[in-house]
Amino acid sequence: MDSAQMPPAHAAGRRRSHLTPGRVEAFSDGIFAIAATLLILNVQVARAPAGQLTRQLLDLWPSYVAYATSFITIAVMWLNHHAIFSRVAHVDRPLVVFNLFMLGLIAFLPFPTQVLGTHIGTPQDATAAALLYAVTGILIALGFGGVYLWLATHPALLHEQYVGVDFLRVAPRYLVGSIAYAACIPLAFIYPPAVVAVIAAIILYYSIDQLPQPKATDPTNVGSQPSSTSQK
Amino acid sequence: MDSAQMPPAHAAGRRRSHLTPGRVEAFSDGIFAIAATLLILNVQVARAPAGQLTRQLLDLWPSYVAYATSFITIAVMWLNHHAIFSRVAHVDRPLVVFNLFMLGLIAFLPFPTQVLGTHIGTPQDATAAALLYAVTGILIALGFGGVYLWLATHPALLHEQYVGVDFLRVAPRYLVGSIAYAACIPLAFIYPPAVVAVIAAIILYYSIDQLPQPKATDPTNVGSQPSSTSQK
Amino acid sequence: MDSAQMPPAHAAGRRRSHLTPGRVEAFSDGIFAIAATLLILNVQVARAPAGQLTRQLLDLWPSYVAYATSFITIAVMWLNHHAIFSRVAHVDRPLVVFNLFMLGLIAFLPFPTQVLGTHIGTPQDATAAALLYAVTGILIALGFGGVYLWLATHPALLHEQYVGVDFLRVAPRYLVGSIAYAACIPLAFIYPPAVVAVIAAIILYYSIDQLPQPKATDPTNVGSQPSSTSQK
Amino acid sequence: MDSAQMPPAHAAGRRRSHLTPGRVEAFSDGIFAIAATLLILNVQVARAPAGQLTRQLLDLWPSYVAYATSFITIAVMWLNHHAIFSRVAHVDRPLVVFNLFMLGLIAFLPFPTQVLGTHIGTPQDATAAALLYAVTGILIALGFGGVYLWLATHPALLHEQYVGVDFLRVAPRYLVGSIAYAACIPLAFIYPPAVVAVIAAIILYYSIDQLPQPKATDPTNVGSQPSSTSQK
Repeated sequence: MDSAQMPPAHAAGRRRSHLTPGRVEAFSDGIFAIAATLLILNVQVARAPAGQLTRQLLDLWPSYVAYATSFITIAVMWLNHHAIFSRVAHVDRPLVVFNLFMLGLIAFLPFPTQVLGTHIGTPQDATAAALLYAVTGILIALGFGGVYLWLATHPALLHEQYVGVDFLRVAPRYLVGSIAYAACIPLAFIYPPAVVAVIAAIILYYSIDQLPQPKATDPTNVGSQPSSTSQK
Repeated sequence: MDSAQMPPAHAAGRRRSHLTPGRVEAFSDGIFAIAATLLILNVQVARAPAGQLTRQLLDLWPSYVAYATSFITIAVMWLNHHAIFSRVAHVDRPLVVFNLFMLGLIAFLPFPTQVLGTHIGTPQDATAAALLYAVTGILIALGFGGVYLWLATHPALLHEQYVGVDFLRVAPRYLVGSIAYAACIPLAFIYPPAVVAVIAAIILYYSIDQLPQPKATDPTNVGSQPSSTSQK
Repeated sequence: MDSAQMPPAHAAGRRRSHLTPGRVEAFSDGIFAIAATLLILNVQVARAPAGQLTRQLLDLWPSYVAYATSFITIAVMWLNHHAIFSRVAHVDRPLVVFNLFMLGLIAFLPFPTQVLGTHIGTPQDATAAALLYAVTGILIALGFGGVYLWLATHPALLHEQYVGVDFLRVAPRYLVGSIAYAACIPLAFIYPPAVVAVIAAIILYYSIDQLPQPKATDPTNVGSQPSSTSQK
Repeated sequence: MDSAQMPPAHAAGRRRSHLTPGRVEAFSDGIFAIAATLLILNVQVARAPAGQLTRQLLDLWPSYVAYATSFITIAVMWLNHHAIFSRVAHVDRPLVVFNLFMLGLIAFLPFPTQVLGTHIGTPQDATAAALLYAVTGILIALGFGGVYLWLATHPALLHEQYVGVDFLRVAPRYLVGSIAYAACIPLAFIYPPAVVAVIAAIILYYSIDQLPQPKATDPTNVGSQPSSTSQK
């Protein structure tokens, strides 16, 4: 529908991918939803003699915390991913590659989540578990930052109402996550449970949408952008 | 398409999320479908000497009951979720947060389902298993109630034909579930298997759609609302 | 879009579900795709001393056959499900219930598939494994038959070009599956591996589309029906 | 929408499947996304005494490599699958069958991935693990080649702007994959880890889109083709 709304000259003027933003979003949404739902498969009660279940369920609390942390992380990622892609009109190969890099790490998240939940309570292993989780977080943040920076430096990929909007202005916001996750690395050696608290703070920070708004205040344009995303 | 059908002034008059109801529904549907399908992964036959399979399969009946209960619960949730969202025209952040809270618990359901199926037959552990399932149910009901109450108190988020419809009238209906699940807590100490029967009754209760109908009886309006949902 | 193509009087004339066929199909497709993909999780190589892998992989052949059988079964179900729903214009609650009953069994299929693959080679357990698979097949066929018979006896739910088309004419086709699966029950006691062959024959039978074609031969109508399904 | 853009005579002139390309793509995308996300479930840390986690996580490196290889393989397959289907206007049964054959093998990929990651480091088992992965790759490449060759020899299934475009010209490209995977078979006996390197090279080769471009340079046509895919 986007291209139907564009003047034909605009549509034909650039070599574009056959991939549409809607298509990339649908695939990304699938990965987000599946990764979030798979997290629970790693919360397991071991077979034990009768009468142990209450204690086993209570002892699993780090796994519940890890589940909640990762589920909310993926949910916030999904929200921000959509916030970004609702501004995208065209997709090129590098954008797809950055996006797939990030998705591959999102899909990897159930593993460090399980390791964190299972080992954060064991003093000898807590550092390794927290490190694995923090490194995965750094890489996800880098992937997300890559997607954002590519778009910020390639305004031709954005919807028309964002032409002239300075996307680089909020780019530092995407470095904050990487830096905060990186700060978890020394922290994992000092006091591993604090890593989970830092990660929770990172999620809270990213749950606030601060992306640039469209320049156009013309009601017709404002109406046409959500319209294009509601097609899917 | 919604916004295309709205007068532009309406579209520009309020700061809205870039998220459309269709988008939230698609993500929610993904979580519902995946959580429902993952339930079966927790039904497992342990390795045993040859000739034990018939007995093992028969002994698994509580797991089959737990599977069926949770699958139907998720299916009814999905039906009601769609019934609610078919009335929604716009999405704001609090609605998304209530919705994600509920989805996080839906995605958690395979775990209490497995615990219930595996331990309801062990007298010493049945109470703990039933409690875990009931508490998850209470939280899901609260999340669902949160979604509903937010919409009932924010009519600006609803489709135009629901303007002036009293959504709070059926709000008590959403408390019934929480109360019934809460009644499972003492019940789990008295006779755990009865908890499963109460949960089945709750599902039956919610499987009947009693949401307010649109005020407008003008055929054009009635036609336009399903039309907007059929876009997806 | 359907309702947009209908005269408003038609749209307002009956109390319809807010669920659209497209919505039900999307949810069903999710269950089909997830169940099909989860099948592989039950194909596992046990930990064994080094040097055993070649033999282990070869010994898994019944699991490969079970995987292929169930994957093709789900794929053919998906094809036929879409063939049926491409003729549906409106959805009511009983249709949704029949459909969910069938989906709950489709989602259950990975379990009998794993049991079949793991135990068909053990003479003492092969009968139980084949019985479990055959009973699941009977129930799926009954669910599918329920969906079909409800539509065949409620032509108001179908697209306009099927008004007057006799859907009951091909109804016996949906009994064949149930009967063939039922024939597997005695067969499971006589020679369990033959059950897999019968199931393969059932799939082959259903892979041929024989649903009634629209009555209208007017090219405009023929064009408009696929058009309505291509919206999704 | 496709058929809406076609002259009615064209639409009625051939017996077509009720399946639309969009529908087949949506189902395929589901399988791609789920298979890619399930890969991580097979990366597991065994229970071990406290203090072993760091070593265990480091020893898992072949599993990380196998995860990354298979995730990227599936992602590249998804990209190429969409590149092909964006040129498809109609779907017939053989195309669906080739496609399902390929999807059944994509969904199978988590199994050889796990086996490769777990056993490539064990000299006695590395050949068997590499063989299993290579054979799966050959079969996937054959399925993909089947989809492509069927389309290349049935131009009536393609969008109008590809009428007269020689799709067979790039057909050898689809043989390269099968041959390279086949070359892995002797390689698996000589030096199994080299198989992973060859597979990585195959992915790199296929990540470059070289499908024929539409013949029409008329801007209206160029605009209409992405338009038809953006409907979904």
